Amino acid sequence: MDDALRALSARGFWTPFPEIPSGKIYGETARDDGQVAFDSALGTAFEIPGHPHAQRVGAEVSPWGFALDITYPAADAPALIAASQAAAPAWAEAGPEAWVGVCLEILTRLNAMSFLMGHAVMHTTGQAFPMAFQAGGPHAQDRGLEAVAMAWAEMTRVPESALWEKPQGTAAPLVIEKHWQVVPRGVALVIGCNTFPTWNSYPGLFASLATGNTVIVKPHPSAILPLALTVRLAREVLAEAGYPADAVLLAADAPGAEITQDLVQVPAVRMIDYTGSNAFGDWVRSHAAPGTQAYTEEAGVNSIVIAGTDDFAGMCANIAFSLSLYSGQMCTAPQDIFVPRGGIDTDMGHKSFDEVAKGIAGAVDALLADPARASGVCGTLANPATLDRVAQARSLGRVIRDSQPLAEGRSASPLILAVEAGETDAYEAECFGPISFVVAVDDAEAGVARAADLAQRKGAITAALYDTDEDRIPRVAAAFARAGVNLSVNLTGNIYVNQSAAFSDFHVTGANPAGNASLTDAAFVANRFRVAMWRRPRAA
Amino acid sequence: MDDALRALSARGFWTPFPEIPSGKIYGETARDDGQVAFDSALGTAFEIPGHPHAQRVGAEVSPWGFALDITYPAADAPALIAASQAAAPAWAEAGPEAWVGVCLEILTRLNAMSFLMGHAVMHTTGQAFPMAFQAGGPHAQDRGLEAVAMAWAEMTRVPESALWEKPQGTAAPLVIEKHWQVVPRGVALVIGCNTFPTWNSYPGLFASLATGNTVIVKPHPSAILPLALTVRLAREVLAEAGYPADAVLLAADAPGAEITQDLVQVPAVRMIDYTGSNAFGDWVRSHAAPGTQAYTEEAGVNSIVIAGTDDFAGMCANIAFSLSLYSGQMCTAPQDIFVPRGGIDTDMGHKSFDEVAKGIAGAVDALLADPARASGVCGTLANPATLDRVAQARSLGRVIRDSQPLAEGRSASPLILAVEAGETDAYEAECFGPISFVVAVDDAEAGVARAADLAQRKGAITAALYDTDEDRIPRVAAAFARAGVNLSVNLTGNIYVNQSAAFSDFHVTGANPAGNASLTDAAFVANRFRVAMWRRPRAA
Repeated sequence: MDDALRALSARGFWTPFPEIPSGKIYGETARDDGQVAFDSALGTAFEIPGHPHAQRVGAEVSPWGFALDITYPAADAPALIAASQAAAPAWAEAGPEAWVGVCLEILTRLNAMSFLMGHAVMHTTGQAFPMAFQAGGPHAQDRGLEAVAMAWAEMTRVPESALWEKPQGTAAPLVIEKHWQVVPRGVALVIGCNTFPTWNSYPGLFASLATGNTVIVKPHPSAILPLALTVRLAREVLAEAGYPADAVLLAADAPGAEITQDLVQVPAVRMIDYTGSNAFGDWVRSHAAPGTQAYTEEAGVNSIVIAGTDDFAGMCANIAFSLSLYSGQMCTAPQDIFVPRGGIDTDMGHKSFDEVAKGIAGAVDALLADPARASGVCGTLANPATLDRVAQARSLGRVIRDSQPLAEGRSASPLILAVEAGETDAYEAECFGPISFVVAVDDAEAGVARAADLAQRKGAITAALYDTDEDRIPRVAAAFARAGVNLSVNLTGNIYVNQSAAFSDFHVTGANPAGNASLTDAAFVANRFRVAMWRRPRAA
Repeated sequence: MDDALRALSARGFWTPFPEIPSGKIYGETARDDGQVAFDSALGTAFEIPGHPHAQRVGAEVSPWGFALDITYPAADAPALIAASQAAAPAWAEAGPEAWVGVCLEILTRLNAMSFLMGHAVMHTTGQAFPMAFQAGGPHAQDRGLEAVAMAWAEMTRVPESALWEKPQGTAAPLVIEKHWQVVPRGVALVIGCNTFPTWNSYPGLFASLATGNTVIVKPHPSAILPLALTVRLAREVLAEAGYPADAVLLAADAPGAEITQDLVQVPAVRMIDYTGSNAFGDWVRSHAAPGTQAYTEEAGVNSIVIAGTDDFAGMCANIAFSLSLYSGQMCTAPQDIFVPRGGIDTDMGHKSFDEVAKGIAGAVDALLADPARASGVCGTLANPATLDRVAQARSLGRVIRDSQPLAEGRSASPLILAVEAGETDAYEAECFGPISFVVAVDDAEAGVARAADLAQRKGAITAALYDTDEDRIPRVAAAFARAGVNLSVNLTGNIYVNQSAAFSDFHVTGANPAGNASLTDAAFVANRFRVAMWRRPRAA
């Protein structure tokens, strides 16, 4: 915890959870154990001992091509709320050290379970295994730990007690002893998404749990298993520590019979962490009970502006990887690439607009030339609708690189279209999936202005700039900062605009429509608890 | 600032702004200068150089008995929003050190103006001068400084830059340089109240200004002068430092033609600090634009529970002062006093329910026996409606002590009524002003249960307990903590339940209907800004 707190301040590289899926780190049998555990869960009833349970639900289908055939215990919203509230007093009573201790133990055991989690995430999100392991396992655990550390930092800013001595001139001072106590706010609801069921849910889950609240985890009906594993493990740790397991509950539901809306509107729910579409985000904000705090990550349109580069090949390769990774289904993936109509200067001479577009397309071709590697980078498409969207998008511009199915699963390689800046209907709407637009603009400044304006109106989580003009870079950074977008400049090599590292990168600024919360700043945790005091004159 | 930050952590007694209205501290001529400045403002047009100005408004009448006859520049909501937004870029650009520096200079100059502010507060709120000086001057400045210090602490938690070095096995590490920038959220609206125009407005005003936002200050139409003085001074400091004066604006309006609702609904307004009724608080929350953060202090019903005492006279005198001070018009003043029906044990033997009630009433009589002192403690009634409320309240219970006009101004001494616990219609509604109920309950536990339940349902900012049972005190503290109420135990002598000291006492917990914000915790400031980053590979 001390290391985590130092990392939060220094914001350099730090993680206690190794991202490499290696038996040397996780134990020689970890890889096989994880595979066996996953295989043996298929086609069974997933048991969560003691969990409220009126029926069983579950209809997950792996985008890699088979049904999981797992069912989960399910209960309606009133039953879940009642169980959560019943667990609340004992959990609230436990106090910050217990809350944080339980959270750290949960995270430690989640880390040991990373191989199983990798398979669970792979076959609910469609990610390839290495990414599912990293993003669904250690990186998600990092984000959870980050939230716990920030919560601890904020809770411990207030001392447990203090003496207040007010001078009274020549008389004896007034001396009052004061005692402070952290008071949780109530029931917290975490609404997970299909594509990153753990990474996007752990910050809210652990921020609320570490501040003494009880938590109901509502997974996306297509990605229940990763959060069911998480909830079951959390309940085991709670129970072993002597606290009510129902402090963490699973709100599993069936596609078409979601109970999310029922849960959102309950006045006892004081915090909602939501990852998903802007449309449902709006609904959550307007239908949550008055005073309920909603922390959202919603959709946006991320941009790259290319002004120039001294490493054309490196730039194209870097962008190609960002467009291909998990088939553009990351909230951080770029969609619009603004390129001056007259081309750019590079280390390989002047490149026309088309040469730039084709350079990126060619780099995608090279990246995906080997079918196995292509599937390993692109994974599959979580949602069948994404495949339809790719098909329909072809007509939105001039096709620079067409999309093709990959060797494995429901899949589509990146579709790259060229459009003119005026064709805003094409490129300003979010096109979730492996669809990107190379947009012809008058010059780099026009590209920055359009990208920043788009971010302010539609939201954006990331932006990237390729530029050799050292005077312009800070101005562009300031423009994107005003639009509330984190900017990556001149990325080449093994670091990508999509990546957001816990303890260093704040994920989402909260300052544009792509979300109102930032992972993990003080604002993300400080409103999840209250401080109550009692005071009295000091006994003589 | 270092001292302020240390005080925020230690939470002992600390203030840089002396509360004693003494020429030795504030300068030999300060007292006279303040009086002269106030007198010469009466009957004039209050000028705010360069302020948007379409008409003049102002109809303040001192509750001490004369019209102020001052008019203020006024503009409609669109003009104020436009001016605030026009000032925003230059102010946002200034950065945390400038924001905080300007705020500290404003507070320092406000402190030097404390005598004038004392008169301005006295004749808009009806407080007696010593209290108006303290609460409207140094104590309000303390609360402003506290907000600035907390904002500084939160903004500086994120470094301006860092190197992120990720090991790459035997290869050279990935090295990324990262730069962070604090980004303000937009226009902040501060809605002031009639009774504490500066104390309740400064936290929000300074929290928003210190985090780079522009601020529109909307005073209550009956208490404009204190905030007009504040805004004019803030604008002077801003202009001297080279920033747009319109970063702080006054939204003066006329009674019956308030522009509050127009301002609340503007999407550009991202933060609202509101002090006032629950009914209008509900309206603000439901009509503010989506995503606007509202920080509220609303009304509640504060309770005292008397279980027993070893200083009966001290207890009665202490409660008498709390009931009398500013005629119960403090948001921290007690209204309901729960006393066991069978009486209590004291250092003066057993006291029956009626003896306790009459002991308190007698202490009020003693406190207010001297007419000049009575006016000095009780002040006057800010709102004529409060006088009507006192008249109507007489029928709500058995009169233990009747209310009478005091020697000066629109005034009423404390009305004390006795009621049974079942008469909830009488004592559970907020009766703002010098009205209190001594409520007969079965025993102390029943009193605590009723008071805590009432706090959870109707809100409460303070609670007090008199008890000699050391085992029970922590249980009562826990019960009030769960209800989100700060508790004072066994106060006698020169410290009162009404008092809330900056840098030590959090004012309002935010955990019950009396308000959703706490002065000043991290949650009060952390959501007023965002952090944006730009990063790039470190140059070789």
